[in-house]
Amino acid sequence: MNGGALNKQTQNQGSCFWVIPDGYIPPDSSGELVSHESICVLNCGEAAAQLRIHIYFEDREPLEGIKEIVEGRRTRHIRTTSLEKGGERIPEGVPYAITVESDVPVFVQYSRLDTTQPELALMSVMAYPADK
Amino acid sequence: MNGGALNKQTQNQGSCFWVIPDGYIPPDSSGELVSHESICVLNCGEAAAQLRIHIYFEDREPLEGIKEIVEGRRTRHIRTTSLEKGGERIPEGVPYAITVESDVPVFVQYSRLDTTQPELALMSVMAYPADK
Amino acid sequence: MNGGALNKQTQNQGSCFWVIPDGYIPPDSSGELVSHESICVLNCGEAAAQLRIHIYFEDREPLEGIKEIVEGRRTRHIRTTSLEKGGERIPEGVPYAITVESDVPVFVQYSRLDTTQPELALMSVMAYPADK
Amino acid sequence: MNGGALNKQTQNQGSCFWVIPDGYIPPDSSGELVSHESICVLNCGEAAAQLRIHIYFEDREPLEGIKEIVEGRRTRHIRTTSLEKGGERIPEGVPYAITVESDVPVFVQYSRLDTTQPELALMSVMAYPADK
Repeated sequence: MNGGALNKQTQNQGSCFWVIPDGYIPPDSSGELVSHESICVLNCGEAAAQLRIHIYFEDREPLEGIKEIVEGRRTRHIRTTSLEKGGERIPEGVPYAITVESDVPVFVQYSRLDTTQPELALMSVMAYPADK
Repeated sequence: MNGGALNKQTQNQGSCFWVIPDGYIPPDSSGELVSHESICVLNCGEAAAQLRIHIYFEDREPLEGIKEIVEGRRTRHIRTTSLEKGGERIPEGVPYAITVESDVPVFVQYSRLDTTQPELALMSVMAYPADK
Repeated sequence: MNGGALNKQTQNQGSCFWVIPDGYIPPDSSGELVSHESICVLNCGEAAAQLRIHIYFEDREPLEGIKEIVEGRRTRHIRTTSLEKGGERIPEGVPYAITVESDVPVFVQYSRLDTTQPELALMSVMAYPADK
Repeated sequence: MNGGALNKQTQNQGSCFWVIPDGYIPPDSSGELVSHESICVLNCGEAAAQLRIHIYFEDREPLEGIKEIVEGRRTRHIRTTSLEKGGERIPEGVPYAITVESDVPVFVQYSRLDTTQPELALMSVMAYPADK
């Protein structure tokens, strides 16, 4: 199979809606590495993926429709602290949840690095594909 | 797609039954952070989700039907130490398993933070959707 | 729904074949906790689950058909170091893979605790259901 | 069921395309253990699996078609630093993504061990099966 056909076939197996119930930005860091989370998106197709990211909280209305782009045949590991809409960002130290909507099928994994206490900790999950 | 339609479509892709075979409440902690587990639930729909959580053990009958609520368009990161029914709680330091039943489709992720030995460790899995 | 009906419905959504490609028993430990892996099995049904566990290696024939039992309405977190057939066990410090076959549907998660270097590390995955 | 039939049935439930959006080779290590990632592949079938591994980046064209083999009834835990095509390797310290294509169905899990700061951290995910 040539690369173009492979990209198209692979892309079609992706999902346009991914869910990550456990979001949390650790407020503290220690050592050289800064605590952070990443939403890791892979776009195997040729066209750019227009993302709309929605943030759900425990005690207030969601922050909906944060826009991001992942170019074709590229990955992006998006730091959650970089997400912003109308000046609003995800606060540190509060439990939240993430959904990622894309106009073309993509693949999404979520990882967190926590250095609140000295020495780092890692966790990672494949996001849940909500339209399969 | 407007927000309401999106919420409904997303919710329908969730599951009403999620399974987490590896539950364990670490009995010890060190440093500033307390060892704990969280059942992270996302309810994208408008209506509140009525949860019934069941706990399975290695050597005795399950503790069934612990009730929790997750309001519409909200997430809740439920600490397993907070679960209680008729005065019974999940004991620390014993292997157990969790199932989460919901009256409307939701999404569930499970995470554990362990500070038994100094410096924290993290693990996380997407729960297994048992009715898909 | 009463408990019996619920158990049966849930059990039917489990899988009779689960796959864990990344097995590894850390040969070293430090601190109070011993490095170990667990195959965490949940049996929601009434009948006992007869397991047959198969171990694949990088450079030799698999060790097949290790027998274990998980009673009905019980979980078991099986340490991989306890697995044994005809005197043969999984060696420490070598990469291997695990498949878990069950005569009734169950749910399987795999977790590893590593204390090779001081302070523990954790990882966990839901096993892959190979007959869904 | 005899071993041969079991192998065939199991293999057929695998996938020929797996996706890992979050790849990262930590550039630093400390202590006795070296930071690394492994692509853990299980081939339950009799025939060898011919793999083609594709690496996607954030800011340039993918590195496609790295060839690896996993013999029948074997597992291989492939270190990402060992992947090479025409002298090109995956650089350390940059976010990337992985897809694994196989000519026969296999199972894939991805794990990372990070010792950038003293004491190790682990993370692991089941890769996403893109042709199921």
